[in-house]
Amino acid sequence: MLPAYARARQPKNAHTDRATIDDILDTGLVAHVGFLDAGRPMVMPMAHARIGDALYLHGASKTRIAKLDGVAVCLTVTQLHGIVVARSGFHHSVNYRSAIVHGTARVVEGQEIDEALIAITDHLLPGRSAEIRPMTPQERKATGVVAIDIEHASAKVRTGPPRDDPDDHASGLWGGVLPVVTGLGRGVSDAHTPDDAPEPPSLGAAREKFV
Amino acid sequence: MLPAYARARQPKNAHTDRATIDDILDTGLVAHVGFLDAGRPMVMPMAHARIGDALYLHGASKTRIAKLDGVAVCLTVTQLHGIVVARSGFHHSVNYRSAIVHGTARVVEGQEIDEALIAITDHLLPGRSAEIRPMTPQERKATGVVAIDIEHASAKVRTGPPRDDPDDHASGLWGGVLPVVTGLGRGVSDAHTPDDAPEPPSLGAAREKFV
Repeated sequence: MLPAYARARQPKNAHTDRATIDDILDTGLVAHVGFLDAGRPMVMPMAHARIGDALYLHGASKTRIAKLDGVAVCLTVTQLHGIVVARSGFHHSVNYRSAIVHGTARVVEGQEIDEALIAITDHLLPGRSAEIRPMTPQERKATGVVAIDIEHASAKVRTGPPRDDPDDHASGLWGGVLPVVTGLGRGVSDAHTPDDAPEPPSLGAAREKFV
Repeated sequence: MLPAYARARQPKNAHTDRATIDDILDTGLVAHVGFLDAGRPMVMPMAHARIGDALYLHGASKTRIAKLDGVAVCLTVTQLHGIVVARSGFHHSVNYRSAIVHGTARVVEGQEIDEALIAITDHLLPGRSAEIRPMTPQERKATGVVAIDIEHASAKVRTGPPRDDPDDHASGLWGGVLPVVTGLGRGVSDAHTPDDAPEPPSLGAAREKFV
């Protein structure tokens, strides 16, 4: 990412094995979904979940999300782990993982809707779907779901210190990595939560998942 | 974002004032840039910086980034602040800010290249460009820069507790927000940094900026 020139010089950053790709998709908090909207590119942050070879997205209403039916989509998940501080502007970079998935959206029907919505809820809060009441028929009617069957996917990963020009090593300048950390805190309960209600297990599961 | 249905029901989440949009762009660590690539949508994580009404991106080489010249682009920056834990799957959501910018990429020449590259370095590490050596002619030649002049921009912001159905309030279930925090740590120096070299001011400036 950032220093695309660094990428070009280090093609080893690229991965195509599904284990790496799936791990990035499954531990990403947010997906950025790109598609053509009235002839112009659009990139929207969306919730996502993966089941096997399909990624699922949900939307405001069946009619809105249905506009994606048959549309080519690119879904990207990025995790930033550090800012790479080099001795020249050229070699500044970031440590990160990203997965880029290409596919075609298809509107989901029947039981696949229920499975997808459970997966989307449990993606951010593992086990939450079993802690809450079932969906009502009205809620189900108001919710559209699309699947993106993975047609092509790749990942990029950068780790480690800056890769400066050797001539710059003796400059005396500080070089290294400034860590970027994403973490989840303790839950903040709302006014309708009984005083003695403990934090539900799904919150702790989320803290363990997104580290 | 996530529960697009919540969005649809709460259009007050949408903002179009440039102050809000600029603040999201200026404090975002990563941009997701969408465009048509050989007829298919592509979303790439990239470094970015804003100067006035233009967003700047840089790339591997002049030839690679030049492919974006004249191409319609959507640039999205998202900041996630919490997972909204509701009493029904339907009302689960996230607290976040996102800015979505539409424009057309144009290849930058001359002094605008230097200004853009300084802005991109200083976006992640404020003041870093003044701590390091100047760019060499070879490095400048190997780097392509495009500007996206902002043609249309909007922001979405969600804050606060879950907005459950009133019928669910007496359920006794825990509801609230699970905070998501992104922060920068102390710098980790590399093997070429003198033992007595202090962390440069730009790292502290980054810690203050990205909170």
